[in-house]
Amino acid sequence: MAITILATLTGMGVVVHAKEITMPEQGAAIFQHGLPGLPACVSCHGAKAQGGMGPRLAGLGRNYIDRQLHAFAAGRRPGGVMHAIAGKMSPQTMRKLAVWIASLRPHTRVSAHAAIANMPVRRLMVIGDWSRGIPACIDCHDAALMGDGLNIPALAGQQETYLAARLRWFQTERQAQSTPTLIMARIAGGLSRKEIRALAHTMALLDGSPVRWTPGSRSARLSSVVHSPDTFIPPPETALPPPSQLAAAVRQGKRIFMGTTIYAKKYVGRENRLSCVHCHLDRGRLAIAAPMWAAAVRYPLYRSKNHRVNTLVMRIQGCFRYSQNGTPPPAASPVMVNLIAYIRWLATGLPTGVQLPAHGFPAIGKPAHAPDKIHGEELYALRCAMCHGMDGQGRVNAGKMLFPPLWGLHSFNEGAGMHRVGKAAAFIKANMPYGAGGSLNPGEAWDIAAFVDSHARPQDPRLSKSIADARKGGAKP
Amino acid sequence: MAITILATLTGMGVVVHAKEITMPEQGAAIFQHGLPGLPACVSCHGAKAQGGMGPRLAGLGRNYIDRQLHAFAAGRRPGGVMHAIAGKMSPQTMRKLAVWIASLRPHTRVSAHAAIANMPVRRLMVIGDWSRGIPACIDCHDAALMGDGLNIPALAGQQETYLAARLRWFQTERQAQSTPTLIMARIAGGLSRKEIRALAHTMALLDGSPVRWTPGSRSARLSSVVHSPDTFIPPPETALPPPSQLAAAVRQGKRIFMGTTIYAKKYVGRENRLSCVHCHLDRGRLAIAAPMWAAAVRYPLYRSKNHRVNTLVMRIQGCFRYSQNGTPPPAASPVMVNLIAYIRWLATGLPTGVQLPAHGFPAIGKPAHAPDKIHGEELYALRCAMCHGMDGQGRVNAGKMLFPPLWGLHSFNEGAGMHRVGKAAAFIKANMPYGAGGSLNPGEAWDIAAFVDSHARPQDPRLSKSIADARKGGAKP
Repeated sequence: MAITILATLTGMGVVVHAKEITMPEQGAAIFQHGLPGLPACVSCHGAKAQGGMGPRLAGLGRNYIDRQLHAFAAGRRPGGVMHAIAGKMSPQTMRKLAVWIASLRPHTRVSAHAAIANMPVRRLMVIGDWSRGIPACIDCHDAALMGDGLNIPALAGQQETYLAARLRWFQTERQAQSTPTLIMARIAGGLSRKEIRALAHTMALLDGSPVRWTPGSRSARLSSVVHSPDTFIPPPETALPPPSQLAAAVRQGKRIFMGTTIYAKKYVGRENRLSCVHCHLDRGRLAIAAPMWAAAVRYPLYRSKNHRVNTLVMRIQGCFRYSQNGTPPPAASPVMVNLIAYIRWLATGLPTGVQLPAHGFPAIGKPAHAPDKIHGEELYALRCAMCHGMDGQGRVNAGKMLFPPLWGLHSFNEGAGMHRVGKAAAFIKANMPYGAGGSLNPGEAWDIAAFVDSHARPQDPRLSKSIADARKGGAKP
Repeated sequence: MAITILATLTGMGVVVHAKEITMPEQGAAIFQHGLPGLPACVSCHGAKAQGGMGPRLAGLGRNYIDRQLHAFAAGRRPGGVMHAIAGKMSPQTMRKLAVWIASLRPHTRVSAHAAIANMPVRRLMVIGDWSRGIPACIDCHDAALMGDGLNIPALAGQQETYLAARLRWFQTERQAQSTPTLIMARIAGGLSRKEIRALAHTMALLDGSPVRWTPGSRSARLSSVVHSPDTFIPPPETALPPPSQLAAAVRQGKRIFMGTTIYAKKYVGRENRLSCVHCHLDRGRLAIAAPMWAAAVRYPLYRSKNHRVNTLVMRIQGCFRYSQNGTPPPAASPVMVNLIAYIRWLATGLPTGVQLPAHGFPAIGKPAHAPDKIHGEELYALRCAMCHGMDGQGRVNAGKMLFPPLWGLHSFNEGAGMHRVGKAAAFIKANMPYGAGGSLNPGEAWDIAAFVDSHARPQDPRLSKSIADARKGGAKP
């Protein structure tokens, strides 16, 4: 019971009991036939929950459904008839329904996908618009917008009217308590009515294959415009020059940046699951998340970490050594050359050698009290666990590390910058929860950082001993 | 006799016969006592040729003295009484005097050096002002302006009135035939009357120790001014930030750039004598000599030379491999980091990723005729040999490679860009003779380049075989 309440409060999900998993037919029966005083779900939501008068439920995860039923019952989510219906359900009934519905695969229209020509709205789904704080839909809802089967709903092929109504409702939500509502209220708040209509229309047509966006035919070479460092915007994807070896290197560099464990696998620690983009949000572009363009023009730079002037190459090698717990790619390796090509391209037009305000993460002051990892754990359960998991192991979806692991074997090692509580706090304050950066106060960010960094993770490689050294009792320099 | 005429025509110097070297006292006697009908030199030029009514002659090289006596005799150099006196000398007498005078050490005033507070004129002597095409005086006249003892006269401690008159005379010389006059006419032509007065005054006070110039106390941090790429001027030496690790790296990078064989010795081929500055003139700043600031913002760049996208680090490694016939410094080696720091500092304020007109050398068209290395040899003797030697081995002075060797074991190998005739021709056209760039026509530049590149030099390391490969008959990839 304590677990259920916590789940409701935090949106982190329900621990489903073994006997319920073995009895999805109980949920199926309720869905088809109702219970005494409870109408059958099928009447509105259609056979196999594929939608009818009401929205499609197939494709929603069991935690999500359970959470929504509780919200309807408590009146935290407006839903007309659903307030009354859910109000009659016991928590057990809710869970039975959730388990069964979550087992159904959504149907989507086939081959409508290619017809979606609305490039601005595709761009919003695939790239987002971080200038308004809007991350890409696919960043959380899966590359095909099919959801994660647990907490995050499928959007592809959902009813257009339902999607539009839901986004409009998020726009009105000013006192969000739960993390998903907090995030979606922020995101929807940045959308225009027209964008909401276009998003709902487009999502309803999606067929369950990955959404793609490619720069239009109006691509143009970037002129040598000199940007002011205060208002710098990296070149758009459309500004890549026509196919050339350098453009190919830039593109491959972006692939490595977005999927480091795949495209730079040999340099990533065997157990490590992190990609560059997990810390450097919005493809390395976001001004408040250590943007790559600011680093590109700032290095070489003295770093007290290794008591040396570091070139950009050396700095990137540091990321592989610590954040990726791996092996530094040699300076002339294709991985390094492609990353440098991508990073320098992001800085196109920026003056060399300047220190931009955007360098690194926005500064965060010292906390008023010593960081409290017990309080951090409570906040983590409320604000972070839905994506990163209460076990901190993040979430893989369709082979992609949707949300990064924060500790343990799969995460950064003890030598990484993120293992310094102050740096992690600065990142969290500015950027977390994803899509709702700035919503935590500084003390909360410090407490969460202290909790996250209190967990075991791979050792700092600078401290590791070789077997020979260990036998002699010495340490590696 | 043919040799003497050639020497007179070309200014490259006299081959001194062995018997003359063993008889300097003949020159001494003529200097002290004259010959029948020839007044004693000592009357005007003072004891030990330290100057009196006339200028000091001690400190002038034997080729220089011989050349001047011929020029006085022929009326090519104005000199009042010297026209009549030299006109009475036989070539043998001229050579005897030249050999003896060249053996005398010049006296300079002691401890006046530190009193020279004229920073602009010191800067001119040590740095030059390439915006007016004026190289530093020390680039040819030795770091202490003591000359090279052969072709290039000592200036330190020379009579002020003489120095000023000579520079003013160079200013009037419009039809220069000899290479030194061609060069000095260009340089003096760029000086103001006030600068000539200040230079003569300052040089007369020099005490024979190396001339130094350090940025004044009005040093300022460079603000993040955004320069237009068309009018870019690298930051002045005064713009280095106050002592810091990065500033130290920039300074050390400049030292390496200027004295690569000394400060990056381990990466320079054992026999190689080239430094970065020998191709990248004016400390890597000169817009018409592959300026480092243009490279800094252009890389990464695809190069057909190695069929790869190259980072700046890789490009510099290429210089060490080919131009310096050595070993590429690893990306994280202090030598590489310091060079990158210096090069990126030179580009301070330049927009990242732009292709500047100044990148590389100014383009030179295809020659009208096939490059003619026989004609190139004649031109080389006239225009190049005074500095680089007829043997192409350049000139060491006071431990410094004053003029670089152009072929043979001490020069770049066959894989270097300068071994491509077109690239060498472009460099020569724009920059040679040193201080008089642009004075050769394109065809002449092609011919000289063809002559220079026709000589033996170290093999392209890409073609070299390992012993094992050679035994098997295979080649390294």
